[in-house]
Amino acid sequence: MEKQRPAIAAAPSAKFKTEVVNPPLHAFGFEIEESSPQKVTGRLHVTHNCCQPFKVLHGGVSALIAEGLASMGAHMASGFQRVVGIQLSINHVKRAELGDLVLAEATPVSVGRTIQVWKVQLWKVDPSNSQSKSLVSSSTVTLLCNMPVPEHGKDANDNLKKYYAKL
Amino acid sequence: MEKQRPAIAAAPSAKFKTEVVNPPLHAFGFEIEESSPQKVTGRLHVTHNCCQPFKVLHGGVSALIAEGLASMGAHMASGFQRVVGIQLSINHVKRAELGDLVLAEATPVSVGRTIQVWKVQLWKVDPSNSQSKSLVSSSTVTLLCNMPVPEHGKDANDNLKKYYAKL
Amino acid sequence: MEKQRPAIAAAPSAKFKTEVVNPPLHAFGFEIEESSPQKVTGRLHVTHNCCQPFKVLHGGVSALIAEGLASMGAHMASGFQRVVGIQLSINHVKRAELGDLVLAEATPVSVGRTIQVWKVQLWKVDPSNSQSKSLVSSSTVTLLCNMPVPEHGKDANDNLKKYYAKL
Amino acid sequence: MEKQRPAIAAAPSAKFKTEVVNPPLHAFGFEIEESSPQKVTGRLHVTHNCCQPFKVLHGGVSALIAEGLASMGAHMASGFQRVVGIQLSINHVKRAELGDLVLAEATPVSVGRTIQVWKVQLWKVDPSNSQSKSLVSSSTVTLLCNMPVPEHGKDANDNLKKYYAKL
Repeated sequence: MEKQRPAIAAAPSAKFKTEVVNPPLHAFGFEIEESSPQKVTGRLHVTHNCCQPFKVLHGGVSALIAEGLASMGAHMASGFQRVVGIQLSINHVKRAELGDLVLAEATPVSVGRTIQVWKVQLWKVDPSNSQSKSLVSSSTVTLLCNMPVPEHGKDANDNLKKYYAKL
Repeated sequence: MEKQRPAIAAAPSAKFKTEVVNPPLHAFGFEIEESSPQKVTGRLHVTHNCCQPFKVLHGGVSALIAEGLASMGAHMASGFQRVVGIQLSINHVKRAELGDLVLAEATPVSVGRTIQVWKVQLWKVDPSNSQSKSLVSSSTVTLLCNMPVPEHGKDANDNLKKYYAKL
Repeated sequence: MEKQRPAIAAAPSAKFKTEVVNPPLHAFGFEIEESSPQKVTGRLHVTHNCCQPFKVLHGGVSALIAEGLASMGAHMASGFQRVVGIQLSINHVKRAELGDLVLAEATPVSVGRTIQVWKVQLWKVDPSNSQSKSLVSSSTVTLLCNMPVPEHGKDANDNLKKYYAKL
Repeated sequence: MEKQRPAIAAAPSAKFKTEVVNPPLHAFGFEIEESSPQKVTGRLHVTHNCCQPFKVLHGGVSALIAEGLASMGAHMASGFQRVVGIQLSINHVKRAELGDLVLAEATPVSVGRTIQVWKVQLWKVDPSNSQSKSLVSSSTVTLLCNMPVPEHGKDANDNLKKYYAKL
């Protein structure tokens, strides 16, 4: 009999997990969804907080998302070594506006022992047809890998493994 | 009775002005200081909210600051036309940590009629010697200029002129 | 008398066409193959002339190829208006060496009226298995479009249309 | 009679030295002038060979120069270890034309043990006033440093030391 078995704690929400592993992304309401060494994805509802004064998604928020997802992916792809973003190049190609739903996806371009390169794309979903989406920005993030995790960073690593690892 | 009210209201704080003209920068506690078509500057105290999990300033926050300051400067240099950031390249060269004071400065590289290019540098101040600072990141932002300001953006423009313009 | 002239001249070689439309690419022996508004491709045998001192393909040659192919593609995609490359970002991910065969492909990321963004990838072919290739570099080129063709540039345009256009 | 000829041959020309240490730069007529761990400079007369079809300096040639000078500087700054360019970002801000004289200068932004970042600027000299010059392009090159020099690269190193080293 299994009566005593706890109902199984509810899986932590994407919101909660993002808050734990990446406070700056959480600050804008971004939610990390999938994460693996092959792909990191997430979504953002564009609120006032994410916009520049003309009610358009701030390009810096797109860059923040790119840097955040690429770092997570590279961290996992390096076997949870510490990784450091050293270069980010982003092209903003179409604007997303207040109220839009934006989807993000990071995938590896090259996973070397010392250097990793990740590509991150953001799309906005057409509000009248959720199957249709158009590219908002495309970025490339270059990261230095395989650096030792400092003692005070062990917790950070544990959280990332706990909530996202699918190695 | 309000006789004693000074003739001139206290100048709005840097914090307040940043909130009005650039909500995403304000979200991290960044304060815009000087702004003109020749230079935009500001400062950030690195709080938990600005950090990636290893208590280091999130590279995406640096990118956000770069995009934000360059946009403000280009907007002013174009005579308050609408400007759109189309490309950002940033190199992270030294880490800033939780508690550090970071200074930022944006200056124009090239101000054309259609395209402007701005350079943005971030430094951290040595806590033991405020005269000494070291480069944290260097970025280049490319912007498309001289686009018409949409009707619903007139307010944004007015705020920017009110709080920052020194043309 | 010209009776014997064949109705159709022999097709000009890729080498010859590259020399006419893009002297700098030709200087390194690069051969443009396919070109259309959707894709521009070509190939390069890595000779001494293309190498930095360690007998490795010079990263600047990769950048030159990227800029060249993206410009051709954007020129065609804009309906043969003049285009100007304003920004190039390239990541070198694996080295190609003296003797290697390198393939290049440019495809559009975004084709706007004012700005186009193209992606250019270079691969090297495995000498022992021509079906296998690995990524050498990945670049993103940002171009300003729809500028008028100056009078003295009409010939350049005519050559490009003559040898490459497949609109 | 030539008895008096000095025992020491005339210093090799900039052209000759560039050919030895950097064939791709030499292919366009570029001449390296000064080189040290703090600065690398050179010059280029824009010939037909350097131009895209509209008689304007090919952006890829600017990128090639940037990559070449930054690599030389980083190589020297690392104590003649092997360096590998991993990322180049370049902004083209003003065009140089057939016949123009272009000056180039590379200086370090950050010299770390693992990563170096160099800035490279190109200017064109005003033909009517050689004291006046305007910015053509600005680039940032990221390099991975301190890699071992392979046995077959020892000669390359020797040439560089012989002709350029001023450590």
